[in-house]
Formats: sequence, structure tokens, C-alpha cells
Amino acid sequence: MSFIKTPAVPVESINPKVKDCEYAVRGEIFNHAQRLQEELEKNPGSRPFDEIIYYNLGNPQALGQKPITFFRQVLALCEYPALLDSDETHKLFSSDAISRAKKILSTLTGKSTGAYSHSKGVKGLREMIADGIALRDGYPANPEDIFLTDGASAAVHMILQLLIRSENDGILCPIPQYPLYSAAITLHGGTLVPYYLSEANNWGLEVFELKGRLDWARENGISVKAMVVINPGNPTGQVLSESNQQEIVELCRKEGLVLLADEVYQDNVYVKDKKFISFKRIIRSGYREDEISMVSFQSISKGYYGECGKRGGYMELCGFREDVKDQIYKVASVNLCSNTSGQILASLIMNPPKPGEESHKLFFSEKEAILSSLGRRAKALEDAFNSMEGVSCQKAEGAMYLFPRIKLPNKAIEAAKKASMVPDAFYALRLLDATGLVLVPGSGFGQVPGTWHVRTTILPDESKIPAIVSRLKAFHESFMSEFQD
Amino acid sequence: MSFIKTPAVPVESINPKVKDCEYAVRGEIFNHAQRLQEELEKNPGSRPFDEIIYYNLGNPQALGQKPITFFRQVLALCEYPALLDSDETHKLFSSDAISRAKKILSTLTGKSTGAYSHSKGVKGLREMIADGIALRDGYPANPEDIFLTDGASAAVHMILQLLIRSENDGILCPIPQYPLYSAAITLHGGTLVPYYLSEANNWGLEVFELKGRLDWARENGISVKAMVVINPGNPTGQVLSESNQQEIVELCRKEGLVLLADEVYQDNVYVKDKKFISFKRIIRSGYREDEISMVSFQSISKGYYGECGKRGGYMELCGFREDVKDQIYKVASVNLCSNTSGQILASLIMNPPKPGEESHKLFFSEKEAILSSLGRRAKALEDAFNSMEGVSCQKAEGAMYLFPRIKLPNKAIEAAKKASMVPDAFYALRLLDATGLVLVPGSGFGQVPGTWHVRTTILPDESKIPAIVSRLKAFHESFMSEFQD
Repeated sequence: MSFIKTPAVPVESINPKVKDCEYAVRGEIFNHAQRLQEELEKNPGSRPFDEIIYYNLGNPQALGQKPITFFRQVLALCEYPALLDSDETHKLFSSDAISRAKKILSTLTGKSTGAYSHSKGVKGLREMIADGIALRDGYPANPEDIFLTDGASAAVHMILQLLIRSENDGILCPIPQYPLYSAAITLHGGTLVPYYLSEANNWGLEVFELKGRLDWARENGISVKAMVVINPGNPTGQVLSESNQQEIVELCRKEGLVLLADEVYQDNVYVKDKKFISFKRIIRSGYREDEISMVSFQSISKGYYGECGKRGGYMELCGFREDVKDQIYKVASVNLCSNTSGQILASLIMNPPKPGEESHKLFFSEKEAILSSLGRRAKALEDAFNSMEGVSCQKAEGAMYLFPRIKLPNKAIEAAKKASMVPDAFYALRLLDATGLVLVPGSGFGQVPGTWHVRTTILPDESKIPAIVSRLKAFHESFMSEFQD
Repeated sequence: MSFIKTPAVPVESINPKVKDCEYAVRGEIFNHAQRLQEELEKNPGSRPFDEIIYYNLGNPQALGQKPITFFRQVLALCEYPALLDSDETHKLFSSDAISRAKKILSTLTGKSTGAYSHSKGVKGLREMIADGIALRDGYPANPEDIFLTDGASAAVHMILQLLIRSENDGILCPIPQYPLYSAAITLHGGTLVPYYLSEANNWGLEVFELKGRLDWARENGISVKAMVVINPGNPTGQVLSESNQQEIVELCRKEGLVLLADEVYQDNVYVKDKKFISFKRIIRSGYREDEISMVSFQSISKGYYGECGKRGGYMELCGFREDVKDQIYKVASVNLCSNTSGQILASLIMNPPKPGEESHKLFFSEKEAILSSLGRRAKALEDAFNSMEGVSCQKAEGAMYLFPRIKLPNKAIEAAKKASMVPDAFYALRLLDATGLVLVPGSGFGQVPGTWHVRTTILPDESKIPAIVSRLKAFHESFMSEFQD
């Protein structure tokens, strides 16, 4: 009998949108890193480094950041409420964690984290989040406009799926952008309409650039439906000024664009002269409800909490018609609900302990320690990059990344071409092979043609920064001398 | 100044696939129930019942089912590992919950549930699941073929997104079906190719029916990519026989169809003469790896565990080529990972406490109490439906539902037409208005034209069954006499 290979699913037969989509943050460099890690586990000492260190992803707890105690106490009590009946519990948990857990449990369907919730999320938790938003912005929030999701990514998918009908529908995206947007636009079959952030202007957003891109898209038959703004910026770290935000909102209003405000780094601002202002606040202080449609995305994965693995987040809709909200709710209901641990954490990050509550002191010190350390790490890495030959790095005002520009020698660009690689991916691969450090090439985020970047998180443990900086510098010097023109 | 309404998103402009998709389980009847519930909260006593009881959805913990103690102990320890360092912990947690939590924590990225995991799920947890599958089937499972997801629904979406290119790609689905499939096929732009289960044959699956439908689809230019089988059945409750499963596998092999095996009710079998056999086992015992492609879906939401709100599940791929698996992994990576609590629970349901471990006795008694009670409830409701005029109800061999057929009088069908309603939705709405019981009309699942059904879960608390049965019967009698021909 001959051996006939008849797989039911040849790769040629799959959805081309799936084939075309790319996600650089866990792309080729990351896959190579995983192979190296396996190799190191089998043959320790086979490489000039002991471990692979993943700076490709904003994943703080993977790199040793501890979760906020209060948040985890509440979560543990909600998962195993039998603890609430025990005398020992008061020795192990703070009184406000206990009372918060009781309050949360009372709002859950069946008083259990194990029941499907309302498809928008538990109503009581949405109310707590609405309170937190109102406190942040000085304007009320409606719990019915809040949809809890398994991380912000799920919310972005839902909105793009709603807006995109075909490749003739465009979404304005910053370049560089977080590649969830390019991947999701590809998967949903739309067209990414790029607008470039100005590196020289600390990655600022220029409205004339936006207008030009919008004109270009329309001349090419693309109906632009929405505009993505990431503030604070990923991978660029800029924090938008209030006047810049006002210009953006006004442009979206005039042009009838839905503003997709990725605000997942709202708690990550490191410079004294900038602060996070929500787009909701900008809109509420100058516009009527029906003048502009905006979606604000928030996540439990970032900030000082970094609860990535718990997959929590929400989107708040502003200025959407009831019939459209009904459609979003219907799609949410097909997947029943987001996970309740993530829902609980979303309610907690928007309502952390207040002064006077038992946990507040510890909470405040944990939060401040993380944020001030992140600020110091951002500065140390920024200085290190700026001290390297041919590298320039803008200030990280916020978020969790640096996006240094690397002036690659022509010989390196030629060597990359020979290896059939994009030059900055060639650089990142060489860096990985030499040091075990996983960075993401700028080409995965987009960049002005002819410029090359890498993205690193600012998450290395503070004690490790000096060693990492010297590895980075040593590699860079050797790379530049190998390929000097 | 005139008030001009210029919403950026008129509903006419959204993705028509979103508009077209329907999900009956949380559809119109459910929305009406929620309005009634709000009304009852504002005006107690305004209706002939005190509360709305949701039997539209397999959501056991919403109806009072308690979670399995061992599972929640492990989860609480993983969420707040500081407990592991405390002397009090041994008073509150069983020793095997403590050791299991330690083992799980050691496998997590950064030893924390708060880190993003591998995009397929934590490798150590996939290994535990593979062990559980191997024990179930007697054939090994490869952790690299297991993808952990936020509930089985997310896995179904991933596979349909992979397979469907356009409306010319078809997916064979049982009728009646769980409406996730119809909703997801619509959202992904494919065509549902129905095959009818045989109600007279206790909702059995007949291969000649399948072949006929396949021929019909191909004559109409539809390329049928995959076949969905739900075993045990939802909403129908049948458990397939081994010989029937073999016929299905052979058909899929011959026709080059991917077998999508929805096996989320694998722990829910209530009759002595039937047992659950996985399609993996059928395939492994008769076919080469490359002869057939199959995906098995499992969920933490069903079984005796019912951990719906935690959103955990997995799919196991069999007979997929590496290049296709790489594509699935890439799409998984765009969303980073599924939630870690759900991942942990998936590892636990596939590896519950074993005899001799401290928790086993309690675990076993909790599990048996739930399953035997579900069996009794299924029988009591089945008998009740069969005692009603014009109603016939097949035996629930497994799963969590009954799907009784109701012979509606012509006058009721005419009244429904006048109200612009499908007749079984009219019946379900009248039932809801009279009793507060939320059932789902059969039309939401599909049924042979001219037949009418409703789906109910078997989840009412056992003590409430007699009262529910008398409400159902009283309503049915009054409905039948109101509309008698």
C-alpha cells in the first residue's frame, strides 16, 4: 500500500486573511528566542549567555514584578469564599480586602465567580468602574456603555469587526503602531491607513499629517471609518498634550471618524511636566454626546498592576447610538462573557484602596515603588541608547517602551539583504544570538522608510539594568565595527 | 442653532455580518426576561411570579451549584501565593491543594498567574492536560497540539476563522445545533450546511442524511470544509454510539472534512448503557495521523464543574500539518494568551484528585452528588414534558438540556403570525410572561420545518423541580385550552 498524504487542510486552502496577518511582538525573533531557550535547556553553556530575557513584550510579572497585594487578596477571597467564614482569615487578609471581596461577591450572578455574567460584564463591577472613570475625569460614566473584555485586545477586535465591511474601509493608525492594530485590521479584512508620528518632535502627532493621509485615502476610494490614537504611546512612549488631544477630537468630529483611544497606559506617566488626560474628558468638556463617537480602551495588563495573565479590560463607548450598542452587545453575547477574575481586577484598578482604609499604606507604597522604578529604568535605558554610536532615543514620557533609532551602516543593510531579512530584524537577531536579549525590530511597528529602530520594554529588573546596558553596548559596538562602512 | 444629529456610526454602515448574526440563547426572549426582571425589581408584585428563572443557558453556578472545593482551593492559592508561606494555610487548605498549587505555580511564566503565558497556554499546564487526555483515551496526547482558550467558544472562532474564506466555504452543522456555530459561521462569512438529527431515533445522527446534504452543498457550489458534531448533544442530549462515531470519522476521512468535535459535555452522561468515547480515541484506534484532521473542543464550563465564568477551555488538534498549526499559533499570539485562571482550571478538570490524595473523598462526593442529581433532574423534567398534552421529549442521555417537541395548535400558530413571531418563540414568550421561566425557542437552534420545540436546561435546583413542573404544566394547559383548534 502506498503512503498517500491527504491532509484535510493544506495551508494553501486556509483563509488568506489569516495567512497575511502578522504580529511582530511574538513574531520571528520571538520564535527564534524560544528555540534558543530550548537549546540552552538541553545544552547549558552552548551559548555566550545563560538565559533568554524577553523584553519583546510588556509583561512585567514575567520579569519579577510582584502583583499588588490588595488586588490578589480580594481575588483569592472571591475565588474561594469559604475563607470568609474562617477565623484564620483575619490573620491572613486585610479588613478592606475582606469587605471588598464580600461586596464584589454580592454583585456576581449566583454570588459566584463561576457563573457566566451579563455579556457586558457584571453590572455591579461596571458600576464600580463607572465610579472610577467619573473620579478620574470629573464627568459621569454610564455602566451601560462599559463592556468588560478578556484584555483590551478583545475589545479592539470587537470594534474593528463592527466597523470593517471590506478592504474599502480604512482605519487611521499611527506609525509606529502597536501591531495588534495591523494584525486585527488584516484579520477583519480592512485597510490600515497610516499616519506618521514625528520622531523629531518626540513622537508627537501632527494634525496636518493626519489630514494629508485622510485625503490620500479618500482619493484612493477608501472610506476611513476610525482613527486609532495610543496615548501614552506604544511603542513610542509619548504623552499627548491637552491641546493636541483637542485638535484630534475636533478632526474626528469634522471628518466623522470614530476615535479609538487606546488608553491602556493611562497609569504609566513618568515625567513631571506631563499628565494623562482621557479623551473622554476632552470630549465631555467641549462637545455634545451626539457630536462624536469615541471608544476608550483600558486594560489590567499595564499600569503599576501589570496583571497581563488575568486578561481583563474594558471599553467605554461614548456617543454611540442605541441600535449600534445593541449590535455590539449581541456580538458580546455570542461569547457569553469575559472571565470574571479579569472583571474583578478591572473593578479594582479603577477603585484601588483609599486613604484611611487598612490596605492603603501598603498599596500606595507598592504602587509608588513600581512606578518610580519604571521611571528610573526608562531614563537609564534611554541614556544608554543615546550614548551608543549612531543611536538616538526619544524620552519615554509614559507607557513601557523605548523605540531607539539605529543608523545602520550600509554594509549591515547589505548583509541583511543577503540574509533575506529586513535590516532591523537582522540587527535584532544578531543581538539575540549574541546576548540572549529579545527586542522587537521597528519594522514590526512601522517606521519612516529608510529609518531603522528596535523596541525594548523598560521592564528589566532594576538591579539588572547595568549588566544589560553593558551587554547592549558591547554588542552594538561589535556590530558597528563588523559592518562599518 | 438647529440640533443636527451626525453620529459617526449609523447602524446602516456597520459590518453586515455583525448585523446578520444571531445568538438565540441570549436573544429576544432573554432580553425580554431582563426587562421583566428590572420591572419586578421596581414593582414587586406586578407579575404573577416573584423572580425570573434563567433556564436559557447552561450556567449551573448561577442557579446555586457550588464549585468543587479542591479546584477553588488550588485557584485561591495560585492567585495569592503568600498564603503558601503561612502556618494558618494548613488549617484552611488540603495538603494536595497546597502541593498542586505549588506545582502549578512552578510552571507559570514568572511563577505568577499575572504574566502572559505562552500563546498556546502554559506549557506545564498543557502537559498536565495531555496526561489527562492520555488517561481518558489510552492514546498519548502531544502538549504542542493543545491550545488553551478563553472557553471553548474562542477555540471554535479560531478554527472557523482559519477555515472560512468566503460564503462559498461551508461548514456541516447538526440541526438542531448550539447557536454559537450559526453565529460564528455568519460572523466569519461562511455558509452553514445543515444536516438534520433524527428526533424519532432519539436525535441520532444518520450518515445517509449527511451524504445527501454534502451532495446538495457541492451541487450548489459550496466547498464543504468541516463537519461539526456535538457529543453529547446540545440541545438534544444524545450520546453517540461508538459505531456511529466510526461512521462519522470514516465519512470525514473519505470526504476530506475536518471533524470539529464539540466534546464539552464529555463528563455529562446520565444513562448506564451509554458512555462518552472521544473522537480522538476512535481515530487513534483506526487511522494514521495524516489520514484525518480533527479538532476536539473541551471546556471548564460544563461537566460537574460548571466553571462558566472562569472562561477556560482548550482544543486539541489531531492530524494537522505543521504549517497550518503555525498559522493557528500566530493568530493565538495576536491575542497573547487566554486567562491563566481558566488555564489552571482546565488542567485541574483533566487531572482531578486521585484516590489516596487528601481531597479525593470530598472531591468524589461533590462530583457524584452533582452528576447524580443532574441525572434525576433530567429524568423528572423529561417525564413532566412527556405527561403534557401534545408534547414529546426524548431522553437526555447526556449534556445539560432537554429539547421537547410541542405540537402547537393551528390557532396558536395563527396568533403568532399576527404577532409577527415564530410560533415557538410566541410560546416561549407566553411562558415567560406567565411563569418567569426563561426557555429558548427551538427556532433558535434549528428544527425540521413545521415542528416546534423549546430548549430547557436541566439545571433547576432539585428542590425546585416539583414547583417548576407544576408551573410549566399549568401554563401549558392554559395555553393549549386558549388556542385549542
